[in-house]
Amino acid sequence: MNTILESLYQRKSCRVFTDEAVSADLKQELIRATMQAPTAGNMHLYSIIDITDQHIKDQLAESCDHQAFIAKAPLVFVFCADYHRAWQGMKSFIDQETRKPEIGDMFLAMSDALICAQNMVVAAQGLGLGSCYIGDILENYEFHKDLLKLPQAVWPIGMLVLGYPTQHQLERQKPKRFEPSFVVHSNAYQALGTKDQQTQIDELFKDHPKPISALNYYDDLYHRKYTADFTHEMNRSVSVMIETLLSTK
Amino acid sequence: MNTILESLYQRKSCRVFTDEAVSADLKQELIRATMQAPTAGNMHLYSIIDITDQHIKDQLAESCDHQAFIAKAPLVFVFCADYHRAWQGMKSFIDQETRKPEIGDMFLAMSDALICAQNMVVAAQGLGLGSCYIGDILENYEFHKDLLKLPQAVWPIGMLVLGYPTQHQLERQKPKRFEPSFVVHSNAYQALGTKDQQTQIDELFKDHPKPISALNYYDDLYHRKYTADFTHEMNRSVSVMIETLLSTK
Repeated sequence: MNTILESLYQRKSCRVFTDEAVSADLKQELIRATMQAPTAGNMHLYSIIDITDQHIKDQLAESCDHQAFIAKAPLVFVFCADYHRAWQGMKSFIDQETRKPEIGDMFLAMSDALICAQNMVVAAQGLGLGSCYIGDILENYEFHKDLLKLPQAVWPIGMLVLGYPTQHQLERQKPKRFEPSFVVHSNAYQALGTKDQQTQIDELFKDHPKPISALNYYDDLYHRKYTADFTHEMNRSVSVMIETLLSTK
Repeated sequence: MNTILESLYQRKSCRVFTDEAVSADLKQELIRATMQAPTAGNMHLYSIIDITDQHIKDQLAESCDHQAFIAKAPLVFVFCADYHRAWQGMKSFIDQETRKPEIGDMFLAMSDALICAQNMVVAAQGLGLGSCYIGDILENYEFHKDLLKLPQAVWPIGMLVLGYPTQHQLERQKPKRFEPSFVVHSNAYQALGTKDQQTQIDELFKDHPKPISALNYYDDLYHRKYTADFTHEMNRSVSVMIETLLSTK
């Protein structure tokens, strides 16, 4: 297998980092490679907030579902969908009265931000750095907006923590992915029946030291994710994000 | 520079492909590597629709802002945010009456879908395939939902066309990216003033054979993107997507 594919297979989430600092040069190399990401019309509809202030890291560790490892990560980046920069440029140079960014603009900017975040994950892996997404940045919208001083048309969408992985993290088994047959559809969506759902989970855990049944799997998903407090908070927070966008003149 | 970073620097959008077909084996290799992408809680909150039917490619070429090259691409994939699969699994095995996916669930699933799409871009580059995002899949939501038979809690969010690049595409200059200083913020967002906006654009085009002023740049952005028909359609379409989610019981 070639180096690039191998790197995608090897990459797994890393939540524990060694004490080794990431040098300023390496950080710049990481950022420059990250920013080679595709962006719609080369518009760069994203911003990256580089969190170096320990007090802000501490606050994010709390606001992002109380995950203490966030505060200990050498690098913390918040990826924002950003239509503010382009919008202000158009206002300054072309049309002071132009419309404000709308929800489709937001979605396109979200794409730019997440595509860019994944480029950072790949670049980091190439540089020997471990990374972990923190989806919980979608929670507590009002708090994050104030904390990071986000103006209109900038939305916190993704977050990555990075650093050098500990030996234990390097040796940790990567969780298996679903078989493509359950995820890739030919020409139109085909919903799985109950039997397919069972097979999907059986396949996922067939080489697992302690096989997990579909019942166990979905019970875990239901209680630890779908009905958990953080998920309700995420739904509330994103609702506010959308309402704020729709109501702002 | 190492192979992985080099690959990120070399990757640029490719819209014209040679007649060479992509073998079934290579396509499988591409999909398997793509699916190594990070996914929230290993939940795989995405689906990939593999468009092989020429008639559907033709329709997407029309519905995605009339871009004929889409119909000619050897590979066309629509990336959907998908909470249907997990939701149905939980309904089948745990709680028939559980709540329907909400807007925060949708955003988390969108993250999964876009992260996965960018992994495909990277994997494709590693396999010698060119790729191009089609953001216009966010347009014509009602049409795409019907065309791809998307059930509740599945949303078309990203699209990629791929194939072997022509020599001309390989030789085409990659558009320069903004300097990180305009995109990466330290600890809090710092909006650019008019002078910074000017400098940002001057920097972008400083080695360009025909330098472009901030006025020209934003005029182009304003007319060809922000106030263009496809952008209005994207805003309308995503509004409908959100309204449908909020109103569906």
